[in-house]
Amino acid sequence: MPEVRLIPLLGFAEVREGDDLAALIAEAARNDPGIKSGDVLVVTQKVVSKAEGRIVSLDSVTPSAEAERLAVETEKDPRLVELILRESNRVVRQRGPVLITETKHGFVCANAGIDASNVGPEGLVSLLPEDPDSSAAAIRIGINERTGADVAVIITDTFGRAWREGHTNVAIGVAGMLPFADYVGQTDPHGYELRVSTLAVADELAAAAELVQGKLDRVPVAIVRGYAYPHGEGTARQLVRDAENDLFR
Amino acid sequence: MPEVRLIPLLGFAEVREGDDLAALIAEAARNDPGIKSGDVLVVTQKVVSKAEGRIVSLDSVTPSAEAERLAVETEKDPRLVELILRESNRVVRQRGPVLITETKHGFVCANAGIDASNVGPEGLVSLLPEDPDSSAAAIRIGINERTGADVAVIITDTFGRAWREGHTNVAIGVAGMLPFADYVGQTDPHGYELRVSTLAVADELAAAAELVQGKLDRVPVAIVRGYAYPHGEGTARQLVRDAENDLFR
Repeated sequence: MPEVRLIPLLGFAEVREGDDLAALIAEAARNDPGIKSGDVLVVTQKVVSKAEGRIVSLDSVTPSAEAERLAVETEKDPRLVELILRESNRVVRQRGPVLITETKHGFVCANAGIDASNVGPEGLVSLLPEDPDSSAAAIRIGINERTGADVAVIITDTFGRAWREGHTNVAIGVAGMLPFADYVGQTDPHGYELRVSTLAVADELAAAAELVQGKLDRVPVAIVRGYAYPHGEGTARQLVRDAENDLFR
Repeated sequence: MPEVRLIPLLGFAEVREGDDLAALIAEAARNDPGIKSGDVLVVTQKVVSKAEGRIVSLDSVTPSAEAERLAVETEKDPRLVELILRESNRVVRQRGPVLITETKHGFVCANAGIDASNVGPEGLVSLLPEDPDSSAAAIRIGINERTGADVAVIITDTFGRAWREGHTNVAIGVAGMLPFADYVGQTDPHGYELRVSTLAVADELAAAAELVQGKLDRVPVAIVRGYAYPHGEGTARQLVRDAENDLFR
C-alpha cells in the first residue's frame, strides 16, 4: 500500500470561454510535477463552467411567476431563482433561504449548484457544466493527446449534505476510472464476507484534492499521484442514487 | 500551497481490548514515517472499538419484542437489531433490509454503525466507540507524551449518504483541530464575498486517508502530512447537524 501524493497545480491561468482546459493543464504541469499515467486530475467545476461558457449574467434573465414567488420565500434574486429552476428537475426541500433541488443531472444540492463566487464582476453566476462526465472525458483525451499519459479525470463541486454540517468536495464528472471500489463479496482476514463496502472513491478523491485547492487560492486543478484507482469506463452519473431507491428525496 | 502526503502506517499489530493505541501507533511509525508536529493521524473506528472493548458477542444479547418485530421486517438477526436499537436515539428510515438510525452521538447511518466485518469469528460485532471525540483526544495526548509531536487525530467510519451511491469515510471523532475550514466572509480574487463555504475538512481528511487504507489491507492508521489544518479544540460532534435544522431527518 504505497503513499499517495496530493499535488496542487500552480501557475494555472485565469480561464475564459473557449479555452482548451487540457492544454492549460498540460502547460501548467509541464516541468513540475508533470503528468504521468495513473495520475488522477481533479478539476473544479468553476473552470470547466468558464471554459464551456456556462457563465450567465443575471441581467439576461427574465424570472417566471414561479421564480418570483419562490424568490420572496427564499429572499433571493428572482433572476437567480429562475436559473435555479431552469437547471433543476424539481425542488427537493425549501425552508427559509435554503433551496435544495435535484439538478438535470440528478445531483441533489443547494441552488442547483449555481454559484456567484470566483466568477467575476457582481451579477455573473456560474451554472454547472451541462454534461460534466463529457467534460471530464474531453480533458482526459486532450491530456493523452498532448502528453501521452493515460489519466483519470474528476470534475468536482462542493456540496452540502444531509445530517452533517459543512460542505465537502464531491465528484460531478468522472472519466477513465470507475467511481466505486467494490469490496462486496471479498472476505476479510477472518474469512468473514464483507457485505456493504462499496466505497465511492471518486468522491474520496474529490475530497482529498480539496485539501490542496482551497477556495481562495486559485488552485483549480490538483493531481492525485500514486493511487491505484479502479480501472474502467465509469461516470459520475453512477454516483447518483435512483430517486425510487432514495429514502431522502 | 504545498503538497500533501497520505501515508499508510504499516506493521500495525492486531488490536485487542485494553491495548494502548497511542503506543501501538508510535511504535509502528517509529523509524518510518515517524510522527511530526502538524501530522493528522487518521484512525479507523474498528481498532478503537477493539481497544475499548466495544466488541459484543451476539450470543450475549436478548432481543426485545420491538427488536424481534423489526428483525422480521429487515430480515436481520434479532440480536443485532436489539444492539442497533440500544445504540440509537431513534430509527430515521427503514425499508426492506435498510435500517438507518440516529446514534446516541447524533450520527445518522445504517445499523447504528454496528459492523461484523474485520472483527473476528462469526457472531462478534463491533459497536462504535462510546465517545469517539474522547477516544481521539486520548490518542492525541498519548502520542504527544511518547513522541513530543503535536498532532491532530481523527477517528473514522465509512457511512452511506443520502442521494449518492456508495460509502465514504467520514470523521466520527476529532481532536487537536477544528473540523471546519471557514471561508465565510472572506473575499475571492474578484472582491466577491464567499458566502456558503464552510468546508468540513475533517471529513475530507477522513476520505483522503481511506485511499491508503482500504478495507482488506489491515491499514487502520494513516498519516496525512503537510496539511495546514485549522487549529483549535474542535470535535466531531460539531459536524452533526441539529435535528431541528436538518431537512432530511
